[in-house]
Order: sequence, then structure tokens, then C-alpha cells
Amino acid sequence: MAELIDRSLLDFLLHDWLKLEDVLARPGFAEHSRDSVGAMLDTAEKTATTHFLPYFKKADREEPYQDEAGAHVIPEVRGAIAAYAQAGFAAAPFPAALGGLGVPFVVHNAAMAYFNAANTALAAYSMLSVGNAGILGEYGTPAQIETFMAPQLEGRWTGTMALSEPQAGSSLADISSRAMRDGEDELGPRYRIFGTKMWISAGDHDASDNIVHLVLAKIPGPDGKLAPGTKAISIFIVPKFLPDGERNDVVLAGLNHKMGNRGTTNTLLNFGEGTKFQPRGGAGAVGWRVGEAGQGLPIMFRMMNEARIGVGLGATMAGYRGFRLAVDYARVRPQGRPVGNRDVASKPVPIIEHADVKRMLLACKAYSEGALALILYCSKLVDDSRTAPGAPEREAAESLLGLLTPVAKTWPSEYALAANDIAIQVHGGYGYTRDFDVEQLYRDNRLNPIHEGTTGIQALDLLGRKVLRDQGRAFGEFAAMVGCQADAAPDDFAPEAASLRAAIADLKSAIECLRAAGSEADMMGNATNFLSAFGHTVLGYIWLSIAAALTNSAMSADAADGRRAAARYFFAFEMPKVAAWLAPIYAGNRLTVTVKGSWF
Amino acid sequence: MAELIDRSLLDFLLHDWLKLEDVLARPGFAEHSRDSVGAMLDTAEKTATTHFLPYFKKADREEPYQDEAGAHVIPEVRGAIAAYAQAGFAAAPFPAALGGLGVPFVVHNAAMAYFNAANTALAAYSMLSVGNAGILGEYGTPAQIETFMAPQLEGRWTGTMALSEPQAGSSLADISSRAMRDGEDELGPRYRIFGTKMWISAGDHDASDNIVHLVLAKIPGPDGKLAPGTKAISIFIVPKFLPDGERNDVVLAGLNHKMGNRGTTNTLLNFGEGTKFQPRGGAGAVGWRVGEAGQGLPIMFRMMNEARIGVGLGATMAGYRGFRLAVDYARVRPQGRPVGNRDVASKPVPIIEHADVKRMLLACKAYSEGALALILYCSKLVDDSRTAPGAPEREAAESLLGLLTPVAKTWPSEYALAANDIAIQVHGGYGYTRDFDVEQLYRDNRLNPIHEGTTGIQALDLLGRKVLRDQGRAFGEFAAMVGCQADAAPDDFAPEAASLRAAIADLKSAIECLRAAGSEADMMGNATNFLSAFGHTVLGYIWLSIAAALTNSAMSADAADGRRAAARYFFAFEMPKVAAWLAPIYAGNRLTVTVKGSWF
Repeated sequence: MAELIDRSLLDFLLHDWLKLEDVLARPGFAEHSRDSVGAMLDTAEKTATTHFLPYFKKADREEPYQDEAGAHVIPEVRGAIAAYAQAGFAAAPFPAALGGLGVPFVVHNAAMAYFNAANTALAAYSMLSVGNAGILGEYGTPAQIETFMAPQLEGRWTGTMALSEPQAGSSLADISSRAMRDGEDELGPRYRIFGTKMWISAGDHDASDNIVHLVLAKIPGPDGKLAPGTKAISIFIVPKFLPDGERNDVVLAGLNHKMGNRGTTNTLLNFGEGTKFQPRGGAGAVGWRVGEAGQGLPIMFRMMNEARIGVGLGATMAGYRGFRLAVDYARVRPQGRPVGNRDVASKPVPIIEHADVKRMLLACKAYSEGALALILYCSKLVDDSRTAPGAPEREAAESLLGLLTPVAKTWPSEYALAANDIAIQVHGGYGYTRDFDVEQLYRDNRLNPIHEGTTGIQALDLLGRKVLRDQGRAFGEFAAMVGCQADAAPDDFAPEAASLRAAIADLKSAIECLRAAGSEADMMGNATNFLSAFGHTVLGYIWLSIAAALTNSAMSADAADGRRAAARYFFAFEMPKVAAWLAPIYAGNRLTVTVKGSWF
Repeated sequence: MAELIDRSLLDFLLHDWLKLEDVLARPGFAEHSRDSVGAMLDTAEKTATTHFLPYFKKADREEPYQDEAGAHVIPEVRGAIAAYAQAGFAAAPFPAALGGLGVPFVVHNAAMAYFNAANTALAAYSMLSVGNAGILGEYGTPAQIETFMAPQLEGRWTGTMALSEPQAGSSLADISSRAMRDGEDELGPRYRIFGTKMWISAGDHDASDNIVHLVLAKIPGPDGKLAPGTKAISIFIVPKFLPDGERNDVVLAGLNHKMGNRGTTNTLLNFGEGTKFQPRGGAGAVGWRVGEAGQGLPIMFRMMNEARIGVGLGATMAGYRGFRLAVDYARVRPQGRPVGNRDVASKPVPIIEHADVKRMLLACKAYSEGALALILYCSKLVDDSRTAPGAPEREAAESLLGLLTPVAKTWPSEYALAANDIAIQVHGGYGYTRDFDVEQLYRDNRLNPIHEGTTGIQALDLLGRKVLRDQGRAFGEFAAMVGCQADAAPDDFAPEAASLRAAIADLKSAIECLRAAGSEADMMGNATNFLSAFGHTVLGYIWLSIAAALTNSAMSADAADGRRAAARYFFAFEMPKVAAWLAPIYAGNRLTVTVKGSWF
């Protein structure tokens, strides 16, 4: 079995490439050093290998089920959540004042990479808790933090994000969950919540003592009606069990049976049914508002960059794991002879010697290692946006992070999934059977282009909010940075640097074409093609930048040659697609706008 | 539930586009007419809807299992096989002299499209029998035909192709199954077969009274050894039960548990174990040779074009079905508002009104309807290669068929699968659950890039055998035909015609680059990129040709506009990729050859 992650790659990315020492030198991180980061990654590898990896297939095979008591998962989920917290990872990214370890976000995600590589379905419980705790830590009152965040850092409780509803997935403006004021107590303004939430990951299970839901709901206006749009949305803490242990009115209405990622329960939840549970003698799920009324979406979106990077990380590691397994398989599976060898009596060679298998592995490597670099890069931007020395640097990081987040969410979801597809192909028929992990990785990863904002939604975010509405400022700064990187490229990467400059120029022209398009519908009609072209350009930047950093790295000559080859592969085989995606934009193609539904 | 296939599309493709009347006018098809073909398609739709479609999910959910008696499948498989044969489809493509109905191959495949759209896992049993019977009909003796082919045409028995072995998947030269001469009888030269066969679809099950395996095995030389290479390979009839009912020495050693396509058993078979069954008092599976000794591969390859078109058809219809379901869903699912509508109080619109959803549906339509046209086009070439009036036409059809078969196998396997991927995306989270058929279609279809020659193997076949070894003759004829089509394009498709001419010119340049590459390894190192570029060019030709034929078609104006839009989509969004795939070939990129296994 391949090691979960090539540690020399992780060390290279963190230290040689991202210059983690600069982050660790900041005042808030005085307790951390390269050594302590190394120890933390060692612990992550060990914990992931011991408590997550062995249950990779079991969590898929023994799917969660539901009975009168709620949802049941394999018992090892409880152990995984506990081991994760006991090793300090639940507390790692939070400041000491909140009971955390104050680890930089990029280090937290480097550690998370191990858990995602080992078993993304089990890791989700803890990841969702970290996201939940992040909102509580930033917006909760001290009492809310002590009551609802602290048990999550200890791994006793877990948390969810309850946003979507059956009729409102991508369109949160249309949620109809209702929050009725019900007094106030030491935990803040109290409400009764009524409504149905769909697609809630880890929304019910028996692997923690309580589940803290963060629920989006609308507070009715004076007329008793829910205002349309997003301005009436607030966010509420709604625990499965109230702090005194009473069962809250949150009922599991159903489990979704998914193609993959089965170890994470995915639920339909009824809040305030009033039939099964009547907490404190009345109907309605008891909840406490976090932050101000009407601030539900802004608060949720504050965590959105991190959540989307988290999805990108999960996708990345599924792809990366598939890549490593495919390499291992290709090294030991004999089949056929090299092209040109007509000696049928000669021995079959390991398939890694065939050109087309090497092409597939190069693609896997370029996709999955590139995605890992992208995710760590964006994770460091999260740190920079919070802790860089000067306000201008923090703002620049925030702006670049906003621009890159749709790529961090989408590119791994699409291309690490492509790596999983290739990993199956390398295995041949074996890869299509459930005896090999690559089969499940492909099913697991297919989730990622859907949740936390589909690829199409990310494209609208990128082109609409981050590029056009921003007047191209963030894009301009990115382009300038890429230009500097191209100027600093090693001599033997001069053609790749030229190709990257050309891609940036092409994107600029495309933006001009879009601005000239007139109607907003026309501007946005090819948004996904723009995202595809921009995403590959970002990865071109990542790979050129990695190639430049390899010169002085500590990794083996073979490993460095492999990464140079992956960088060259990306430019030779992938970057030409940028022009192909932009072609309809240059041509002002209006098909996606003009085609009628009745034509299908 | 969407109708299985838009009949007006099928009629258009067969009659307006492919001019089926020209085929039906040939002497061998005197009994058939446009009306009788229509009746046959009606019957196919009805049989598929009644006996196949209702068990689509059941065949997946209630996976085949194995016990002492062998493999068990859901009881409806027997009914499906019987209904298929009783409606005449098992006999349809064979000449009357062999007990068949003498239907043109293109009509046979148009009918098969219904069964594949309804339930490809159940259709596989009958499809494999048709392939098996095809070899028997062409190469078997009258006694072999009467004994082993006739019961398959009646739907009482089924058949398999037993080629692969655990150590020899893509590389048949390395098979080690052994056939020892054991006399001769009225069924021909008799042998005892010893060996293990892997990946045998429908290799064991309880849905027919007998299973006729066509087994590749080597006859030892005078020294008792199996010669390396393919020249010692012969092909044998090895039934599960001998004609007198005695159980043959063919033992189910295991079932493969697949990601999808679960309703078709996929088996590991031991021939000649000698432990469980000793037919006629001895060890070894009793079999009879078909054709001459040493002709195993040529006989098998004679059917390869049809088998590969069959895989392409299965892939196509899974994609097509997903496309139709996605359209239905997009028409009824409300979500969000059109770009530019800021009125949050306005009603959500059906998602088919969103540009990005229309983009996805256009891609689905271009992929799946294009693939269907390609498959029918190649199926008609099979007819032309057999029944066109003059020898030169037959040879030209054979040559073009050889060139296009790798595309017919591969392009639907890759792009109809992409259509399934998109169909999930259109459904959002729902598409990732097993409550919706698109989830299973995606898993089912992932098989197709693997079996019957992987995409990489098809690429070697295309570039090596069909283009370079042929000295570009078949490609030249194809290019000339495409040029004629471009000249005949409707005025409003002039830009598309120009784009198609450019793609052909680019492919010609690429072939010149490859010829100049020197070593065979360098010529073949980017074969898959060549296949990708060629495949899209073929589909560009298909779509331009469809656009030209739409002018006088009987389909509705909306339906014709939809197909024009799909054609335009293909040229605007897909054809630019041709240059991207050819870029590394132009550049003489040698990465796939030079990269070392140790670099990964």
C-alpha cells in the first residue's frame, strides 16, 4: 500500500515553495516551528493511518442506516472522531484564547490532507465540526463558545451546516425555514425553528454525544411573512440535545443514499415537527441566534472561502490517493511489450513502461499534485489575509483569495476526479471492481463538483463577482504576479513561461470581449468556459512556480525530475486547452443564451 | 419518464440521413421495407419497455451472487432473454439460411439501441449471444451451427467470448490456456481445454439452459510447449453442458464485483480443473475447434468491428438515456432566477432556462445524439462492406469501417460517459443519489472505456494499423469524403465547414510530423492524443452532415433547431480542442517516451 502522502513533496511545498518560515515568524505563531510542524504532520499521518485508512472500504460497504433511534454508522467513526480530537487536530486551527493550538491554516490543511487521503468520508465529521466551530469562535458569545464550541474541540460533539432545503439548493434566497422569537437566556436570543433542511452532511449519526447544527432560517417580518431574498436570513445554533440533555425537536426524516462518500451520513432533517419531541413542553426546535438578525448569509460567507478550500482539499486527496495507487499498480503489473519489440517470446514488461500509461500517470500527477499545491497556496492566503504584517498585504491576500477560491473549489473537483478516472483506467478491468480502492475513490470524488456550490455556481461567482464586478482589479494583480513569475522562470522553462504569459493575455482579451457583450446575460452565458480557462492558467502558474523552486529543493533527483516532467506535461498537453475554452468567448458565441428549452 | 429514444431522431438518422432505402433495395433485403423496419423498431421499443426497463435498478441493487450451483441473477433476466428472442431480435441479423431474419446490421443496431437504453446490463446477455452466434454462423460447420447456434437464436441458450486471462488482458499473445487434441466426432475436431479465463461477461448465470463459450486457447507444438505469440491460438466451442446434457468441466471460480453494469455477471472461469466435473470420464473441458488451427485471432478479429461498435452502442445509449432524463428534470425543477433578474420576490424558474444548464444540455445532446449517429453510420458501413453492389464499394466501406471502428468504440465510451457525468450535474445533489437513474448510468457506463480494448489500445490500433501502416490511404479517402461534405454544407454552416476543413488539414500535418518522428516509439507515444483529435473531427463531420440533412427532414421545427444548435455547439465549443490535442504532436513532444518510471 502506497504511503498516504509523499512527505518530501509536502515538506517541499510548505517550506521551499510557500516559505512557511515567514508565516511561523509572525507574532501569533511563536509557539510553532518547522520542527513542531513536522511533528504535527507525523502525528496526522499516524492517526490517519491507524484510525481512518483501515475503514476506508468498510465505511462504504456498511452504509449508514436509519431506524427509530436515528442514523447509525459503523462504530469506527466514533473512534476516528475521538482520535482526531485527542491528537489535537480539532483544536489546531483556533487561537489559544478559544481553547485552540493556534496553528496556521496552511499547516492545519497540510495535516487534513492526511485524513482526506485516508478516508474522506470519516474525515468529514471532524472537518464539518471545525467549520462549525470556526463560526462559533468568530461570531458566538462567550457562553455560546463555551457551551457549543468547546465540546467539538474535544471531539465529544460534532457540528453541521444546515443551509439547503429541498426547494432551495443553490438558491438560498428561497429558503423557507422560519425562526420565531422565544425569549432570551444566557445563551442569547432564543428562537423556535420550523423547517426542513436537505443534504445535511453528518446531520444525524451515533458517533458523537451531540450534534450542533448551524441553521439558516428567516425571521418573519411584522406581518408574519418571510421576506423574499437573503436579507431576512439569520443563523442559529440548534443542537440535537439541549445543554441540559433534553432531546430537541430535530428529527431525521431520511438518509440520502449516495453513489459514494457513503460513510458520511447525508440527511433530510425536520426542525420543529412537534410530533416526536416537544422540548421544554412546546413545538419547535429550540435555537439561539448567532450574531445579529439578518446577518446569516454574511456570517456563512465569511467561512465560505475556507469551506470551499476544504472541499477542494477533499477532492484533491481522493485524486492524489488514486494517483499513488495507480503508480504502485503500474510498477508491478506486467502486460505486453514496448512498441517496436516484435519478440513475442520476450517477457511482458510492467505497464509503467508503456508510453500511454506514462501519459496517464503524468496527467494524474499534474492534476493531483498541482491541486495539492493550489490548495496549500490558497490556505496560506487565508493565513496572509489574517496575519500578514501590514494591512495592505492582508488586503491583497484577501483579494487574491477571493479570486482563487472558485478555482480552489472547482479545479480539484474536476481534475482530481479526472485523476481518479485515469487511475481506474491504469488498473484496467481490476480498477472497475470493488476489490481495488480506485473504484471507490472515483465514486467518492464525484460528489465534489456538486456540493458547496456547483461548478456552474463557482463560475458565476468568479466571473460575476470576482472579475467583472471588481472591475478586473484582483485579476490585474494576479496577472502582474504571474508576469513576475514568468520573468523569473528557469531558462529551461522559457517556453512554458511564454505560454503562461500568452494565456494571461488571452484571458485579458476574453474579459474585454465579455465587457463589450452588452447584456448581463450575454456576459455570463459562457462563465463556465471562462472558469475552465482561468483555472488551467492558475495551475500553469502553480506548476511554473514549482518548477522554479525545485532547483534548490531537498527532494531526490528522480522526484525533482518527475515534477519537472509534470510541469512540462501540463504546459504541453493541458495549457493548449485554454485557447479552446476561450474560443466561444472570443467569437461572442450566444448559443447558451439563445437556445430554447423546447429545442431539447 | 422520458420515452426511451426520440423516434423522430431515429427515423431521421436511418431514412433521411443514412438513406436506408438504398440498403433495403439490395437483393438480400427484399423482404424488408421502411414499414417492416418501423414495425421492428416499434416491437423493440415495446419489448425493451416491458421486459428490460422495469428491472434497470433491480439488476443493480440485487447483484448476482454465487453459491455451489454457480452464479444467480434476478429471475427477470431469463424473461428478458426469452422476450428478446421471441420478438425475433436474436435471429434478426442472420441470413435466413442460418435461421435468421436477414435484417441489415444498421437496423439490428437501431433496434438494439432500445434495449441498451432500457437496461444495458440485461441486454448484454442477448448481445453477447448474437456475437457468439455470428462467429458460429460464419465459421462453424453445419453440425456446429445446428447444435450451438440455433438454440441461441431461440433464446434458450446464451453465449460468451472467453478471451482474457488473469495475466493476459490486453495482450492476447500471452494467453496460456491449452487445448489438447482428443479425437474427432460429428461436431468436428475435439479437444480438452485447460486454463483460466478472466473478465468473462455472462460467463455463468441461471438465466438460460446452457452457455456456449467461445474460448481462445493454444494448441501445443510437437514439443508439448505453447508457442509464444498469437499464431498458435485457435478458437473452440466449449459449452457449459455438452449436447447430451452432461456437465462440462467449466467451473465458476469467482464473480467480479463491479462499480456498475452489475446485472451482467462477470466471471473468472476455470476450464479443465478436473475436480468437480469429469465429462466423459476424464479431466479437461470438452471443446470443438471452430475453423482451422491457428486461426483463433483472425476469426475473432473478423467479428471485432461489430463487437466494438456494440460497445460503442451500449455506451451511447447510457449517455443518451442520461441526456433525456436530464432534459426532463431540467424542465420541471425550479431553482433561482435568470442572470440579471434582481427581483427576489419573482418566482424561481425551471433550471432549463439557465444558460449554464443549457450549455450542459447542449453538450449532452451533441455527445449522445452525435454518438448515436456515429454508431448507426458505422453499422451501415458493416452492411455496405457486405452487401454494397460493387466490390470497390464494399472494399471502400471495409476500409473506412476499419478506420472509424476505434472511434466508434472509444468516442461514445468517453463522451457518452461525459454526458452521464453532466446529467448528474444537471440533477445537482439528487443526481448523486441512487434514487435517480443518472447515478447508475454513470457507474454502468464507466465500464466502456475499459473492455473490448481500452482507449489506449484503440489509439494504437488507429494510429499504428489504420493510419501509419496503411500509408494513410484510408485516412486520405476519409479526408476526401469530409471535403465533399464541407463543400456541400448549407450556407449558414459555412464557418463550421471551414473549421472542419481546417481540422482535416491539421490532422494531415500531424500525420506528417509523426512520420518524421523517426522511431516507432516516438511515432506512437502520443497515439491517444491523435485518437482524441481524430475522434472529434469525425464527429464534426457527422454533425455537419446531419445539419445538411435537416433541411428536408420530417422532424418538428423545434427538433430541427435543436439539432442545428447541437451542431453549432459542437463546432464552437468542442472542435477547438482538436488543435489542443494535436499541439504536443506538432511540437514533437517526447515526454511519454522519455519520462522514467522512477520519476513518479
